[in-house]
Amino acid sequence: MTRRPTLAVVGATGAVGEVMLQILSQHADVWGDIRLVSSPRSAGRKLAVRGEETEVAALTEEVFEGVDIAMFDVPDEVSAQWAPIAAAKGAVVVDSSAAFRMDPDVPLVVPEINPHAVRLRPRGIVASPNCTTLAMIVAAGALHAEFGLSELVVSSYQAASGVGRAGAETLRAQLSLVAGTELGAAPGDVRRVLGEDTGPFPAPLALNVVPWVGTYGQDGWSSEELKIRDETRKILDLPQLRVSATCVRVPVLNTHSLAVHARFEHEVTVPRAHEILATAPGVVLFDDPAAGNFPTPADVVGTDPVWVGRVRRSLDDPQGLEFFVSGDNLRKGAALNTAQIAELVAAEFMPL
Amino acid sequence: MTRRPTLAVVGATGAVGEVMLQILSQHADVWGDIRLVSSPRSAGRKLAVRGEETEVAALTEEVFEGVDIAMFDVPDEVSAQWAPIAAAKGAVVVDSSAAFRMDPDVPLVVPEINPHAVRLRPRGIVASPNCTTLAMIVAAGALHAEFGLSELVVSSYQAASGVGRAGAETLRAQLSLVAGTELGAAPGDVRRVLGEDTGPFPAPLALNVVPWVGTYGQDGWSSEELKIRDETRKILDLPQLRVSATCVRVPVLNTHSLAVHARFEHEVTVPRAHEILATAPGVVLFDDPAAGNFPTPADVVGTDPVWVGRVRRSLDDPQGLEFFVSGDNLRKGAALNTAQIAELVAAEFMPL
Repeated sequence: MTRRPTLAVVGATGAVGEVMLQILSQHADVWGDIRLVSSPRSAGRKLAVRGEETEVAALTEEVFEGVDIAMFDVPDEVSAQWAPIAAAKGAVVVDSSAAFRMDPDVPLVVPEINPHAVRLRPRGIVASPNCTTLAMIVAAGALHAEFGLSELVVSSYQAASGVGRAGAETLRAQLSLVAGTELGAAPGDVRRVLGEDTGPFPAPLALNVVPWVGTYGQDGWSSEELKIRDETRKILDLPQLRVSATCVRVPVLNTHSLAVHARFEHEVTVPRAHEILATAPGVVLFDDPAAGNFPTPADVVGTDPVWVGRVRRSLDDPQGLEFFVSGDNLRKGAALNTAQIAELVAAEFMPL
Repeated sequence: MTRRPTLAVVGATGAVGEVMLQILSQHADVWGDIRLVSSPRSAGRKLAVRGEETEVAALTEEVFEGVDIAMFDVPDEVSAQWAPIAAAKGAVVVDSSAAFRMDPDVPLVVPEINPHAVRLRPRGIVASPNCTTLAMIVAAGALHAEFGLSELVVSSYQAASGVGRAGAETLRAQLSLVAGTELGAAPGDVRRVLGEDTGPFPAPLALNVVPWVGTYGQDGWSSEELKIRDETRKILDLPQLRVSATCVRVPVLNTHSLAVHARFEHEVTVPRAHEILATAPGVVLFDDPAAGNFPTPADVVGTDPVWVGRVRRSLDDPQGLEFFVSGDNLRKGAALNTAQIAELVAAEFMPL
C-alpha cells in the first residue's frame, strides 16, 4: 500500500476536536479523505479542515466503511462502545479516552517515548494518555532514559478546559461575576456570589484552587491521580515505579502544569539534565529564573511542545531532581498526541 | 509583675496589620496600652482597635519607651534595623519578617508546635515563620510527633496577598481586564492585554500560575523554597530533614495551599492520621472527597486554623502520606501566629 490513508475524526465538534482540525490542516499532506464525525446532536454542522468546509456526519457503523484510521476524542463510554465497532470495520482506532488505556492488549503511546509500541495492537486500538500525564511524561521519559527513574511525586495545576468546553465557559462566567468587585478576600464571598452551581467542578474555580479532579478512585485517591500513576508505569514500562500525584484544578483556561520531584537510580546533575531536555524531542527548555524565564500557561498555551523550567537538584539527595512543566492540554495533552500516533500508523501505509 | 503588658504594633497600616487589629480586638483582655506604629508616610492615620480610634505613630526610638512587647509586621530591612532598637529599649520583639528567623540566638516559634522555645531569646527577639511554612507546619508537626518525619516534598499554591496589598490589587486589576472577554486561551493573549507591567509578580497572574515566589536563592532555588526547608528544620528541630519545595503563585487573593508528600520513620495509617489531625490544635480536618469535602481557599479564607484534607497513604510506600492544606496567609500565616507568640510572652507578665 502506498496511498494516503482515509481518516475519520470522531468527536470533531468538541474542544479537542477544534484543535485537531487546526493540526490536521497544518499537516495537510498526511491524509487522503478526512471524515468528520460527531454525536447526532452536532451532526450536519460544517467545519473547515485543510481549507475545505466539511459536513460533520453522525456516528454510525457505516461511517467507518473504508476508513483506515479513526481518531476518537469522545467521552469514555462513547469510546468503549464505538471504538471496537470501528476496529471491526477494519479501521485502526487511536483513542484519547481512558476506556482502553490500561487494557493489556492496547498500547499506550507517546511518540517521543515509546513509538515502537504502536505496532503491537491486537485489538486494533491504540490509546493516547491522559492530558496531565502527557504534560509531564515527555520530559520525565527523556530524563529516565539517562538516569533511570525510581520515584515521582507530582502536584498538578490543571486548566479548566481539561473537562472540555464547559470547563472554560464556567471559569469565564465565574470570573465575570467576581472581577471588578471587592469580593474574594472575605469568608464565604466566592461561594455567595457564584451560588451553588459550580458547573463541572466540585467547588468554585474563580479566585480558588480545587484539589479534586475526576471521580472517586480508591482509598481517597481521585481517578486522575491514579491515571497518572498507572499510565506513567505503562508508558515507561516501569510497573513498580513509585508514583504519588496530587491533582488540583486552577483558574487557568488552557494548559496544565506540574511540579515534579523525580528520584533516579543514578546521580543527576543540572547541567546534564539541561543537555537532555534541550535536545529532547517535543520539549522546550526554558530555565533561567534569574532572568524571569520559567514556563507559565500564559506563555505556553497554543504551542505544541511541553515547556520545562525550574530544573534543580534536590538539596538533600544527589539522585533527586525537581522541575516544573507546562503543556497545552488541548494540544500535546490531547489532539497533538493523538495526531502524532495516527501519523505513526499512517506511515505504515506509506513505506519509505 | 501581674499587670497587662504594653504592646506596640509596628506595621499597623499594612495588609497584615489590618488583620492584626481585628485579632487584637477579638483578644481584647490580653493587653494594656496598645500603640500603633508605622512608617512616617502612614503615620497620623487613625485606626480602630478594641473599638477605639487610635492614632498611628511614626517609627522612632522613643515610641518603644515603656513598651513590653513589640510586634513587627514590616519588610525584612525595616525589622533588621529596628527590632534590635526596640529590644535595646527593653521590649520583647515578635518579628514576622525573615530578618532573624535563621539567627541561632532567635527562636522561631509556632505556638502549637514549639511554645517552649519562646522562653530562650538571648537577643530579646522571637521570630514568626514564613506564611507558606505556617500553612503546612501545624499539620506536619502534629503528624511528626507521632510518626517521626523523615522527608517532605511540597508544592505550593500561594495567594496574591502574600506580597501584601499590592499583590491583591494587581490581581484584581488584571482580572478586570481579562474577565468578560474571550481572552486567555490563545497564545500571547494574557501578556498582550496586561502589558509589560506585572506589578509585584514576575509574570501575569490572572488566568495563569507563576512558578516563582521571592528572590533568587541558590542553585536555581527561590528564596521562598529555601525558607520552607530551613524554617521547617528549625521549628521541628530536625536539622537533617529532607525538604524539597516548589513555590507557585496562583490567582487567589488570600489563603495559601500546599500539596504535601510526607515520609515518616514509622508506618502510617489514614485512620490514625485522621485521629491526630482531628484533635491537633489549630487544625480543621475536612476530608471526605466523595462528599465534596476538601479544603479550598474560598472556604478557608478568614478563618484561624489550617484546614487539612485529601489525606491518603502513598500507594507504594506504607511510610508515606499525602495531604492538602489551606491556611489564610494573613491570619495563621502572619498576624495570628505573631499574636499567638506575643500572647505566650504576655503570659509571663501575668503568672497564674
